[in-house]
Amino acid sequence: MTEIRISGFGGQGVIRLGYIIGKAASLFDGKSATMTQSFGPEARGSACSSQVVISEDKVLYPYVTIPHILVAMSQEAYTKFSPQLVERGILIMDEDLVTPEETRGSFKTYAIPSTRFAEEMGAKIVANIVMLGFFTAITGLITKEGARKAISGSVPERFLELNLKAFDKGYQFGQEILETCK
Amino acid sequence: MTEIRISGFGGQGVIRLGYIIGKAASLFDGKSATMTQSFGPEARGSACSSQVVISEDKVLYPYVTIPHILVAMSQEAYTKFSPQLVERGILIMDEDLVTPEETRGSFKTYAIPSTRFAEEMGAKIVANIVMLGFFTAITGLITKEGARKAISGSVPERFLELNLKAFDKGYQFGQEILETCK
Repeated sequence: MTEIRISGFGGQGVIRLGYIIGKAASLFDGKSATMTQSFGPEARGSACSSQVVISEDKVLYPYVTIPHILVAMSQEAYTKFSPQLVERGILIMDEDLVTPEETRGSFKTYAIPSTRFAEEMGAKIVANIVMLGFFTAITGLITKEGARKAISGSVPERFLELNLKAFDKGYQFGQEILETCK
Repeated sequence: MTEIRISGFGGQGVIRLGYIIGKAASLFDGKSATMTQSFGPEARGSACSSQVVISEDKVLYPYVTIPHILVAMSQEAYTKFSPQLVERGILIMDEDLVTPEETRGSFKTYAIPSTRFAEEMGAKIVANIVMLGFFTAITGLITKEGARKAISGSVPERFLELNLKAFDKGYQFGQEILETCK
């Protein structure tokens, strides 16, 4: 079972990012998944997050307690959620929006300028999908094919091509990083 | 405790609709809420749904079993989920996208042309927010002020005004229906 927290600020599409990951895992990759959004004191402020649990079996408890993977798309999200990350977990972040602190435990960090890449494509709004591509390449938790299928049906038809392009950009960047860090 | 299922097809923003309802209830109206997206066999096909639980106390079990309120934004969603609706529950639907069947149990139906209203505003994409306004007026589960606050921070800043206008349109339509059906 893998627990993932996706975090950022409102309007970045972090909920949609979690939704597409869950959909890819379950509908196209043969696993089970849930996505949960808890609202409460921890949801105050502008940080916004969703919890995704992916499992080979049925997910019985959908709340993430100690995430194995944290996706952080804002400094506030990083500050709030990185202390929860499991030892030797994976932190995936937007490198222009998050400045990591050296003292923050022993997790492996992967960074991508997802928002900048999206802006270069003329659509800042697809930063979450660039991040999805990066997440897919780095974690291998969902397949490239599953993720691409999950995107179609999750975004308006007329933006599909743009979203797939954004996905491929993030995926390719992730692959290059993995090659470099071998 | 009130259990709500929001359903439609991918790209309509039904997940965001559930998210904003949960956020309004908890952050601005002093209740607790969770939103859960379960993926699995029931998620196959183009129907897409999220489950929102709103409670005066902490939500212990986030899965919706028998919804009290069903929001249906597509015929497929209506066909799939209306049999689960509790007796004397509330069905809220897009009247241009759903043709209800007479034989479907004893729930109270409220209909709005949310997609058409959104198109008239030049932005079909805000149909979910028109629906949010309608939901707010009809159910009284979340306050108008809470919903409007929850919208800001959940949509990109430059679309905020459009979204608030869409909300007001749906809310006003809901109030008129309540007046008429008194």
